[in-house]
Amino acid sequence: MRQVQLLVNASHFKGKHFISMRDYNREELDFILDTADQMVELEKQGSDLCKSKVLASMFFEPSTRTRLSFETAMFRLGGNVTTVADPKTSSAAKGETLEDTIKTIQNYADIIAMRHPDNDAALRAAKVAMVPYINGGSGSWEHPTQTMLDLHCIRYAKGGMDGLTIGMVGDLKHGRTVHSLLLALRHYDVKVKLIAPEQLKMKPDVIEGTEGKIEIEEVTDLKKTLPELDLIYMTRVQKERFPDPADYDKVKNSYILDKALLSKGKRDVVVMHPLPRVNEIATDIDPLPNAWYFRQVKHGIYARMAIMGLALGVL
Amino acid sequence: MRQVQLLVNASHFKGKHFISMRDYNREELDFILDTADQMVELEKQGSDLCKSKVLASMFFEPSTRTRLSFETAMFRLGGNVTTVADPKTSSAAKGETLEDTIKTIQNYADIIAMRHPDNDAALRAAKVAMVPYINGGSGSWEHPTQTMLDLHCIRYAKGGMDGLTIGMVGDLKHGRTVHSLLLALRHYDVKVKLIAPEQLKMKPDVIEGTEGKIEIEEVTDLKKTLPELDLIYMTRVQKERFPDPADYDKVKNSYILDKALLSKGKRDVVVMHPLPRVNEIATDIDPLPNAWYFRQVKHGIYARMAIMGLALGVL
Amino acid sequence: MRQVQLLVNASHFKGKHFISMRDYNREELDFILDTADQMVELEKQGSDLCKSKVLASMFFEPSTRTRLSFETAMFRLGGNVTTVADPKTSSAAKGETLEDTIKTIQNYADIIAMRHPDNDAALRAAKVAMVPYINGGSGSWEHPTQTMLDLHCIRYAKGGMDGLTIGMVGDLKHGRTVHSLLLALRHYDVKVKLIAPEQLKMKPDVIEGTEGKIEIEEVTDLKKTLPELDLIYMTRVQKERFPDPADYDKVKNSYILDKALLSKGKRDVVVMHPLPRVNEIATDIDPLPNAWYFRQVKHGIYARMAIMGLALGVL
Repeated sequence: MRQVQLLVNASHFKGKHFISMRDYNREELDFILDTADQMVELEKQGSDLCKSKVLASMFFEPSTRTRLSFETAMFRLGGNVTTVADPKTSSAAKGETLEDTIKTIQNYADIIAMRHPDNDAALRAAKVAMVPYINGGSGSWEHPTQTMLDLHCIRYAKGGMDGLTIGMVGDLKHGRTVHSLLLALRHYDVKVKLIAPEQLKMKPDVIEGTEGKIEIEEVTDLKKTLPELDLIYMTRVQKERFPDPADYDKVKNSYILDKALLSKGKRDVVVMHPLPRVNEIATDIDPLPNAWYFRQVKHGIYARMAIMGLALGVL
Repeated sequence: MRQVQLLVNASHFKGKHFISMRDYNREELDFILDTADQMVELEKQGSDLCKSKVLASMFFEPSTRTRLSFETAMFRLGGNVTTVADPKTSSAAKGETLEDTIKTIQNYADIIAMRHPDNDAALRAAKVAMVPYINGGSGSWEHPTQTMLDLHCIRYAKGGMDGLTIGMVGDLKHGRTVHSLLLALRHYDVKVKLIAPEQLKMKPDVIEGTEGKIEIEEVTDLKKTLPELDLIYMTRVQKERFPDPADYDKVKNSYILDKALLSKGKRDVVVMHPLPRVNEIATDIDPLPNAWYFRQVKHGIYARMAIMGLALGVL
Repeated sequence: MRQVQLLVNASHFKGKHFISMRDYNREELDFILDTADQMVELEKQGSDLCKSKVLASMFFEPSTRTRLSFETAMFRLGGNVTTVADPKTSSAAKGETLEDTIKTIQNYADIIAMRHPDNDAALRAAKVAMVPYINGGSGSWEHPTQTMLDLHCIRYAKGGMDGLTIGMVGDLKHGRTVHSLLLALRHYDVKVKLIAPEQLKMKPDVIEGTEGKIEIEEVTDLKKTLPELDLIYMTRVQKERFPDPADYDKVKNSYILDKALLSKGKRDVVVMHPLPRVNEIATDIDPLPNAWYFRQVKHGIYARMAIMGLALGVL
């Protein structure tokens, strides 16, 4: 049997932070996704791989979904979790810097997952952390573990990444999930349609971050673009993002996906959403096979088991 | 040896929700209580029965007691717990519906225990939940796991249920614990005295829910009724429940149990309370053998181990 | 081999509360510290010593550091943790007394660690608790587990306690950490300099608590005293502690330690701090070998593993 020299293997990720989609190439992403595949079975059985290990689950912004996903992922690996879920009960409220918080917390944990309202929080934390630091959402900058779950879900829903035309819809300016997702997609053979109101267009630095590797088209009309899409990644357009409420009123209905609108798309178009949704996906889509947004959640467990397990060197 | 065909066995509860005392017959209640008996020993030893399993402990209303009771019950079964203890830090605060929350959370957990301020929360959640959903208090509607612990404690304190005269005292209108308890008692050979001020009388639909199976008497005078009781189930009369504060002032002292008043009752009358108490049971009762309200707490662990263990199919 | 009769052994601590530094003699402190030494290795490996056991981690005041330290210590011992991190979500918010809270919580846990804003909370709780109660900070009265970690860190940093000249700096009136530390130091052959503004001098009852066993000098000038010190224990001077803000302005810069000031001290002077710091230690000290305040944190795990493991009788 011929031995292929692997450029990427598990030890490549051991002890490393997980901060930004800017840091990974295709081989690395695929390796993590393949590892997440192996987590599907492990998630059902449970394991002792992280026995006695401790995750510090630090959420300095309200979150249910991402926090619980990290915590359950650690439990399925056999580890323990200590949680900060409320910014007001933390040392940060006493005036401690993020750097001091990290230097302290790393004494309590083998790995840290943190959400923080500041855009530069993940980069600052990673600079001082001596245990693996996993970015669980850093202001409106990036949310890279969400992207790993998104990619893993896309592979399940569509059988692979290459050849897809992917539409990202809604608030592409402030949405950290779409920032990280677009950056990751640069490594795949995909076309991307960025569908947003003028006021909420994708941040230029994220588009630059794709290094011209993929075809990106920026449009404002979801209805017109929909028929071309293999996958729709919805996010919410929030009223409070518009300086002039009249501008919001003009666009608000254009970025709502319902069954009638969806019927204009491809029969097997996949609908995803980072959740929570409010009304941007009508509930009449929920029973359709196109609706992947709740199944998508489960892939968060697989992806985060892979990311944490690799960082801890147990996979 | 003759084999008796069992109508109820453990598999009867596997994968099922636990929502309302309206749903259970005597055989089912007794089976759960007998299972709770077996948990007394298991609670001391601990176990690996729920190894790698995860309870989502979701408390969208303030709670210490019930939440910690569920969590410790899961730990004694060998499982893990991921917690939401603060409504403000949750996705619900971002405008997510309860149904979407459940559809998400069930990806993170093998079983959900939830407290929610809405009366219909448990029924709505149970409709969509694909993992066992345990009602940990649903508005002022029901609190059925509290009832299982109450029944289990009564069996310990009095040696059984049948033949007892049970007084429920205080706010019977808003108290979800007394609603669930009264519904459960319909299956036993007991007499019930409902002792409450006019403004806080038991809700008619709960009395109807007992299907005329037990003798129920509604009275307002605790002092007069006390001598007949084998068991007093106290709850608090809250000032804010009275539209006219003058009405509260008239009744407030009538629903306070102290040593002097208790001495008018049977020598072995049992005093229970779902806790927390404020002043409705005077502390001079605490040292008496009649005081069961703190010992009662322990039965919450046994009852919830049984309920969750059966729902998860590990008992 | 001659057997020495031990005055103190592990069983001495089994089932006991841990409330105040007033309660321990040198043999006892040293035994706990020696036990903490053994935890250094155990912390890395993890253990099953507390399998199925539950710590109730009850923080009725904001805290990250102490809470997470207790929780991780329990995880490293193999146990579980149920947490109250937010006073507002607790039964206390419903008007329950501390005594009732304890009588309830002890049904859910094998051991309780609690922080409470009241000075007398630990003593009151210990009176009713039937499981070991560990004082995790009781108003401005005492914080004895912090002292065990401080002592353990001092032994590591200086190789032992005896012969040291120790300066405590800052708010010595309200700081519970310095109260407990000073009380503990009475058993060692040390000199103590209490360096504080007039308004924030050490509480007389704490000085009395040292029973005249050690040489204590109260001064106001950090700069002048610094050269004599082997160890500086910094705490923060908070503006809100001064009735007259002008008084604060007068002293605020006198109690800030920076590299320039530190250079006036002994070459190997050790700088400690209970954290979080705000600006009372300048960050230019962080990279110096004198800076022990972040390494100090780790000793909290060792000390709390020892304290809880001894109380639970597993060590």
